[in-house]
Amino acid sequence: MAGNTIGKIFRVHTFGESHGLKLGCIIDGMPPGIKINHQDIQNELNRRKPGSSPYTTPRREPDKIEILSGIFDGITTGTSIGLTIKNTDQRSQDYNNLKNVFRPGHADYTYQMKYGIRDYRGGGRSSARETVMRVAAGAIAKKYLKDIHKIKIRGYLSQLGSIVCQFQSWTQVNKNPFFCPNENDIDKLKKKIKYLKKTGNSIGSSITVIAENIPIGLGEPVFDRLDADLAHSLMSINAVKGVEIGDGFAVIQQLGSMSRDAMDVNGFKSNHAGGILGGISNGENIITRIAIKPTSSINIPINTITNDKKETIIQVKGRHDPCIGIRAVPIAEAMVSITLMDHVLRFQAQCGKIKI
Amino acid sequence: MAGNTIGKIFRVHTFGESHGLKLGCIIDGMPPGIKINHQDIQNELNRRKPGSSPYTTPRREPDKIEILSGIFDGITTGTSIGLTIKNTDQRSQDYNNLKNVFRPGHADYTYQMKYGIRDYRGGGRSSARETVMRVAAGAIAKKYLKDIHKIKIRGYLSQLGSIVCQFQSWTQVNKNPFFCPNENDIDKLKKKIKYLKKTGNSIGSSITVIAENIPIGLGEPVFDRLDADLAHSLMSINAVKGVEIGDGFAVIQQLGSMSRDAMDVNGFKSNHAGGILGGISNGENIITRIAIKPTSSINIPINTITNDKKETIIQVKGRHDPCIGIRAVPIAEAMVSITLMDHVLRFQAQCGKIKI
Amino acid sequence: MAGNTIGKIFRVHTFGESHGLKLGCIIDGMPPGIKINHQDIQNELNRRKPGSSPYTTPRREPDKIEILSGIFDGITTGTSIGLTIKNTDQRSQDYNNLKNVFRPGHADYTYQMKYGIRDYRGGGRSSARETVMRVAAGAIAKKYLKDIHKIKIRGYLSQLGSIVCQFQSWTQVNKNPFFCPNENDIDKLKKKIKYLKKTGNSIGSSITVIAENIPIGLGEPVFDRLDADLAHSLMSINAVKGVEIGDGFAVIQQLGSMSRDAMDVNGFKSNHAGGILGGISNGENIITRIAIKPTSSINIPINTITNDKKETIIQVKGRHDPCIGIRAVPIAEAMVSITLMDHVLRFQAQCGKIKI
Amino acid sequence: MAGNTIGKIFRVHTFGESHGLKLGCIIDGMPPGIKINHQDIQNELNRRKPGSSPYTTPRREPDKIEILSGIFDGITTGTSIGLTIKNTDQRSQDYNNLKNVFRPGHADYTYQMKYGIRDYRGGGRSSARETVMRVAAGAIAKKYLKDIHKIKIRGYLSQLGSIVCQFQSWTQVNKNPFFCPNENDIDKLKKKIKYLKKTGNSIGSSITVIAENIPIGLGEPVFDRLDADLAHSLMSINAVKGVEIGDGFAVIQQLGSMSRDAMDVNGFKSNHAGGILGGISNGENIITRIAIKPTSSINIPINTITNDKKETIIQVKGRHDPCIGIRAVPIAEAMVSITLMDHVLRFQAQCGKIKI
Repeated sequence: MAGNTIGKIFRVHTFGESHGLKLGCIIDGMPPGIKINHQDIQNELNRRKPGSSPYTTPRREPDKIEILSGIFDGITTGTSIGLTIKNTDQRSQDYNNLKNVFRPGHADYTYQMKYGIRDYRGGGRSSARETVMRVAAGAIAKKYLKDIHKIKIRGYLSQLGSIVCQFQSWTQVNKNPFFCPNENDIDKLKKKIKYLKKTGNSIGSSITVIAENIPIGLGEPVFDRLDADLAHSLMSINAVKGVEIGDGFAVIQQLGSMSRDAMDVNGFKSNHAGGILGGISNGENIITRIAIKPTSSINIPINTITNDKKETIIQVKGRHDPCIGIRAVPIAEAMVSITLMDHVLRFQAQCGKIKI
Repeated sequence: MAGNTIGKIFRVHTFGESHGLKLGCIIDGMPPGIKINHQDIQNELNRRKPGSSPYTTPRREPDKIEILSGIFDGITTGTSIGLTIKNTDQRSQDYNNLKNVFRPGHADYTYQMKYGIRDYRGGGRSSARETVMRVAAGAIAKKYLKDIHKIKIRGYLSQLGSIVCQFQSWTQVNKNPFFCPNENDIDKLKKKIKYLKKTGNSIGSSITVIAENIPIGLGEPVFDRLDADLAHSLMSINAVKGVEIGDGFAVIQQLGSMSRDAMDVNGFKSNHAGGILGGISNGENIITRIAIKPTSSINIPINTITNDKKETIIQVKGRHDPCIGIRAVPIAEAMVSITLMDHVLRFQAQCGKIKI
Repeated sequence: MAGNTIGKIFRVHTFGESHGLKLGCIIDGMPPGIKINHQDIQNELNRRKPGSSPYTTPRREPDKIEILSGIFDGITTGTSIGLTIKNTDQRSQDYNNLKNVFRPGHADYTYQMKYGIRDYRGGGRSSARETVMRVAAGAIAKKYLKDIHKIKIRGYLSQLGSIVCQFQSWTQVNKNPFFCPNENDIDKLKKKIKYLKKTGNSIGSSITVIAENIPIGLGEPVFDRLDADLAHSLMSINAVKGVEIGDGFAVIQQLGSMSRDAMDVNGFKSNHAGGILGGISNGENIITRIAIKPTSSINIPINTITNDKKETIIQVKGRHDPCIGIRAVPIAEAMVSITLMDHVLRFQAQCGKIKI
Repeated sequence: MAGNTIGKIFRVHTFGESHGLKLGCIIDGMPPGIKINHQDIQNELNRRKPGSSPYTTPRREPDKIEILSGIFDGITTGTSIGLTIKNTDQRSQDYNNLKNVFRPGHADYTYQMKYGIRDYRGGGRSSARETVMRVAAGAIAKKYLKDIHKIKIRGYLSQLGSIVCQFQSWTQVNKNPFFCPNENDIDKLKKKIKYLKKTGNSIGSSITVIAENIPIGLGEPVFDRLDADLAHSLMSINAVKGVEIGDGFAVIQQLGSMSRDAMDVNGFKSNHAGGILGGISNGENIITRIAIKPTSSINIPINTITNDKKETIIQVKGRHDPCIGIRAVPIAEAMVSITLMDHVLRFQAQCGKIKI
């Protein structure tokens, strides 16, 4: 109940701190009889892994997944799946100087005030390090959705600062370290990141996630609408400040005559709704977009206070991403996967077999 | 589990269709010993009520609240609170022609496909009529938050089409039928709505809700962050397509050096974060903004299909709001109230008495 | 979260006090497309109804069910079902003398101490009056289980004081006002009740509920075993002090060589397990038994204290059952039905269509 | 949702199979600022540990607890606690002959039928091996209840076969390998176990757990009564077939005049209720008793079937307890601790600080 669980039927529970011994999760509700191997999970983890390009943090973690239960001879048994990952490259000493000071833009202050105690090493539980378990759990959801329902969930960097990355192709997304869908933007992105590194600054960004081949009927009336649950799971990612479905904030200036998706015998003729009507999937692609704030840990000094409420100035050293949004692509995909997986099982609970 | 519940400790369960006999809710987890009377709830319902100005739907519902349990001699007893409201102005016959056709932009199609049956009268369960119970439950949460913690939750229309309503004062918000915070915009809004009515069209809008006097520490790590739960509850409102916390989508173009809120002994020196850091309230005002799509039920014809998959054209008559966003202000306030209330109790569960 | 909900996927939320305006419930998670009419629910309510024989309380309540939502043209729509029942025969004045005194054996003291307030009229929320909504919700679950899966759930009075009622036939159960399965015990029961009424005393009893035609596979590992969930739902009935599955407490004296159920190609050769192995149904009849304490409200005086902690003696007048167990048969059936229903949907969520 | 979680606010999620790599759990909702060290948990694990006396299974597991998160410098941080334990003495080859056959009295058949797959090594997830994590989580709950609320939770063997162990003293309970509270019964127990070992048979038993110094007010109306939740958590232990609160099944033969607990200014004058009235703790000791069936894995042959439905005879070799009830004492204590802990936090959520 204290926040470390997501999902109602497909449930993911996580634990672990940035500099603790291990991070881990339990996945409950997984259907039996599904093939899952280490590599299925490891591949997704590798996409998120720090230290994989000069454009992200140089912190290096092998992030090797350990499967402890719930999978027998490579097949899910229907019982709870336990996963852990060791923290190796911890350098806790980097954080000793942060023991008594609150880093602006981070959760140091709020954790200390809420709990009266905090693991100050790299933000402890509030560190984005925890997202490694989201990606691990998401990998399992993604595999199920793909193998059983042919649902594809893919994301890309849609904006970084003022650089808007127009979608060109999914192939392109996997060809560069930015998850950028357009080859014409790669150089601009490289230059931008280089400049940020030089100036010790960081920048915001936007990620788009699209889910394709969606069965009609996912999502439930009133509160647990699919869009509401997606908003929850996406907004729960560190540093996310905004979520859109379909046309999102653009609807403010739309007329009703423009924003409705007409239908004919072949289905919907447009997709302003982003694949969700009345909180329930309509069979079109589900389109979500999130806004991610710039990394708060930068080399530029800022005023703050200490644990005992004295004023000071902090300049955060350490190894940080100039744009956390870049590595957030597999995380956002994972969250969409977990939420869709939950709703696939919720559908089955009440309405029986999904019509494909 | 089928979506009609919100909250984990302060729980609201609802039922009811647009043209059913009654709508109702159960509120579970309400602390005992709190004064609640009919008028506390009725006042909020009256703010949402249809038919209260020429700028919203002429459908008239007295929306008189019935308190059936959980309040004894005007005091909450700690047991579940049952509330109902009668539907009176139903004119179901308006909807007979919609029995076999799917209204674009509505949930008719998705409900039919998911459940194999739908109450077609006014959208049944998918109608925004259900929000009446959100407002009733929200009134109780709001009262508690105000009486016990002096928390104030207020919203306003921040944009309608291209008319951006700059915040002037809360007094102004209550003086006009648009919940507009700026007297200079009233005429523009009146003209716009008049024009939309004449052309049978509708428009999108944006609502801002601000919660003041927030204790530090609301929200829980990782998944049930306060911002994630607010995103969920706000996105669950009909027609909402986007949610922002603090600077929202503007962070995409911000540098890290601009977006962090510095601190001194008096607290935070800015509020880009919108009052939430690491998913936990930091004591600053909580700032949320939502985007609401234009009403889909308009007099302008559009292509669609029938239950038996034949093509047709539909022109929705009936009595609809040219801008549903206007009446959404009390609904958005209610959702923020319910979510904050839940987190106040969640805080108490784990961390004991809230420090004020 | 404050206890007024049961079930995880098939969820029942209730409200209402003994002497409030109405009692009600919301049923969430009901599959769509199921025929349910007033009479299906009313029939079950009538079996529980007070005042139906000289052997139970003379309090008379028509207990007429009102269906407010979720059922359209006699068919469930998959949306939440709202039900209410009016309290009519309230005679609250009977309870004025109980305002300041705690009735031993009742929840008066614990509610007052927990909440600092209580609705003292007939026990308020703690009254067995609330079980009326369990029976209403149970009727819907029972109908589904019977119509879709041919599962039959039936109970009987298996003991009253020292009178052990050996099972003879289900036909017999419905022929007498005691739900007694053996015609040879009827006279003994009549005499016993008559004697208790004369002496103003009451007696304990035992109810057996048997569920037949159970699919294999209901129940989930470790905590939400079917037996654990049945124990929860049955122990939640007022006045229940013990729950058994299969051989129950008799296992204490059994040898391992006696207590195992051998198997052959035709299935199990005995049913010591009561139809549940490792928390999961094995296809045999599910057998549960509960112990119900004697009515605490009797005419015999007893020492107690007042709200302000002064000693006093209380003699409870009013209209009470000499043996509450008698009317508990439909309630116990309802709880077993609700729990099985929940597990049928839970099975479907994770494992797909139930093999019949 | 698939059963591997217990508790609503203090939540315990578990994973792990009898012969998997590790077992583990996540504890969510733990209050911050509580001192917990390895030894607090290890001590409880040692009480349950197999191989600690000649009267239980000779399987030897060090059961060394690994604390992976949520505790920083020996203090709980309020974030989720991750715990794991390695399986070492696995001898999976003992189970190869069980791959294709269902052991009567075990969950082999029901798991296979439900999931279509099972980890046959020692029962996989259905093995009582999983209770090791219940004891670990229970140790944390127990520590909190004792340190903060002075609540004591202790159990003993109250019956084994026909040997009824009358309570003598808690000191005695810890002096013998049977958790027997009476020195006069030790020899009888030794002889009985020896005899069972010789004959390759097993026997049922009963455990009593008593919780002392209970605050008034734990438990919630209607469904989540404290007794209902205790029944759930106790019945979820492997092999439990019955649960009693207070007088339990003895109430069947009681008159109302005997079964009520009278009150005077010093409190209750008896405790037939077992410390719970209307589902809420009344401040008296909470008394629960469970019935545990004999070990099903015994050396005596029995008829059964194979995976492919052929008849066969099975004689289970391996290393088993002649009476599983003996080692169940710390497990039952753990379950009572977890349930009480959950209700302490639930009380705080709704009603604020507990009055001691």
